[in-house]
Amino acid sequence: MIDILGIGNAIVDVVARADDAFLSKHDMHKGGMMLIDAAQASALYDAMPPGVESSGGSAGNTCVVAAAMGAKVAYIGKVADDQLGAVFRHDSVAAGVSFTTAPLVGGAPTARCLILVTPDGQRTMNTFLGACVTLDESDIDPDLVASAAVIYMEGYLFDPPAAQAAFYKAAALAHAAGRQVALSLSDAFCVNRHRAAFRDLVKGHVDILFANETEITALYETNTWGEAAEAVRKDVGLAVLTRSEAGSVIFSEAETVLVEAAPCVVVDTTGAGDAYAAGFLAGLTAGKSLADCGRLGSLAAAEIIGHYGARPESDLRGMMAGVG
Amino acid sequence: MIDILGIGNAIVDVVARADDAFLSKHDMHKGGMMLIDAAQASALYDAMPPGVESSGGSAGNTCVVAAAMGAKVAYIGKVADDQLGAVFRHDSVAAGVSFTTAPLVGGAPTARCLILVTPDGQRTMNTFLGACVTLDESDIDPDLVASAAVIYMEGYLFDPPAAQAAFYKAAALAHAAGRQVALSLSDAFCVNRHRAAFRDLVKGHVDILFANETEITALYETNTWGEAAEAVRKDVGLAVLTRSEAGSVIFSEAETVLVEAAPCVVVDTTGAGDAYAAGFLAGLTAGKSLADCGRLGSLAAAEIIGHYGARPESDLRGMMAGVG
Repeated sequence: MIDILGIGNAIVDVVARADDAFLSKHDMHKGGMMLIDAAQASALYDAMPPGVESSGGSAGNTCVVAAAMGAKVAYIGKVADDQLGAVFRHDSVAAGVSFTTAPLVGGAPTARCLILVTPDGQRTMNTFLGACVTLDESDIDPDLVASAAVIYMEGYLFDPPAAQAAFYKAAALAHAAGRQVALSLSDAFCVNRHRAAFRDLVKGHVDILFANETEITALYETNTWGEAAEAVRKDVGLAVLTRSEAGSVIFSEAETVLVEAAPCVVVDTTGAGDAYAAGFLAGLTAGKSLADCGRLGSLAAAEIIGHYGARPESDLRGMMAGVG
Repeated sequence: MIDILGIGNAIVDVVARADDAFLSKHDMHKGGMMLIDAAQASALYDAMPPGVESSGGSAGNTCVVAAAMGAKVAYIGKVADDQLGAVFRHDSVAAGVSFTTAPLVGGAPTARCLILVTPDGQRTMNTFLGACVTLDESDIDPDLVASAAVIYMEGYLFDPPAAQAAFYKAAALAHAAGRQVALSLSDAFCVNRHRAAFRDLVKGHVDILFANETEITALYETNTWGEAAEAVRKDVGLAVLTRSEAGSVIFSEAETVLVEAAPCVVVDTTGAGDAYAAGFLAGLTAGKSLADCGRLGSLAAAEIIGHYGARPESDLRGMMAGVG
């Protein structure tokens, strides 16, 4: 039995510093995630400054943070049989996350996300999905899904077409085994690409939804967060809405819980949402109250925000013992 | 015409956090650089915590810092025709360093250095030389050597056997073209491995020597820095001896120059020596006085020490304008 099974795009991040002029020249929307093909990735890599590589991917980040908090975690995602795939696999396994999805052999390389960090600290992401586009239903191990208390899937999974079927298969298998299905909306651009599918998911296939302010208002196309919050609580059993420094709000059928943001020095907000979901789910699968789950989410997010990068720099087991 | 041609082992660093018990368990000497083979590299990588990848290599770091200061720089080193090789090449070229050495095809992979950072901030390095062992005389382009005011070679080049011949060939070509040859002793363990060869180099093949305290005392097997300093000034025309926070001392035939260390916050000393050499040579090839070369070395080292990683995080052109 495991606590959390994450499913997502297995991506290696390539992070470089750039100025606003570089973003403009390459038609990027600051702060967003844009999909690029192999030729665009090659051209952009040639044009961008020196970088630093580290394993990433939204659900991958969540899995690693949850494992650092002591949860039993597995991951499904598709890397290629190449050096960056070996890097991603190592970084998952070494963090205590079980990762047994077969790599793609002889096809596209491991996915990478070319990330430009501007002087204002914002990150602009350009993702070449590479091997991720071959993740499909055959990668969803029914026994693994049935063994997880919660399966957690990122909205970005809807970008590679075959992964959508994998998503629905995993959700159906989880429910058949009496497990819970969680979804993160990933980002507002992703919501805009897949709004109809996400609305359907939230209404009929998902038990727990994670979203920040821009994502939830994009999902319901509302002007205000309040209107979106009213809509989502009717659609899903457990809605976990994060609001940056304003904390988070958890709507269950029985209660509404307000959670304060944990105090932190803001160094780099990349992965804050991934970490919040990790803390929340680690708490939930450990039997904590919703208020404590929210506190754990906030604490995990604060750790990630306090340093560069989306993966933890410290052992987070103490957090679980300290809450609830 | 270029200012500096660096020749070295082209290596991608994999940096992870570890405790002292991990070092003991794997028989590592804290703070040193140990050579490991492919099987050891694989076993150590499997055992080590999640990592972050970035381009490294001693002379590679020097070249990138010198280019950031405005020097015209080229690099010779051997990567493989693989993803990590592409990363190393990109990070060199994107930093403004010309890098045209043909990659190794169908052989060992690109070299990597598995670096364990302990809580005391020290870095312990384990280098798998991979494709670097195939760097040989054929990689030394005579026209490129003749076009460089200074060729700069790292002592680590003496570890892969075929590179020694490349080193001597490059030195001979440089001298035939009326150019200068600089050597960095790399580290004390490296000096111990190649003491006789390095003593011969310093006496007969090198015009400029860079060494820190442990390296120069290891070279001359003296108990004190003073004895080693007396010895080296008789052997080499220009000896540049760095002494950490005590600054540096430059011995030429005509003068002895004392240089203060530039004030800095010590975050990570990795690459400080590489950066000092970069600043010094950028100054020297720009016609600065030895005192100003030393100041530029100290300033470049301070920039690198002030953040994690051995490559610059800011544009260093202002340094050159501000000194001399």
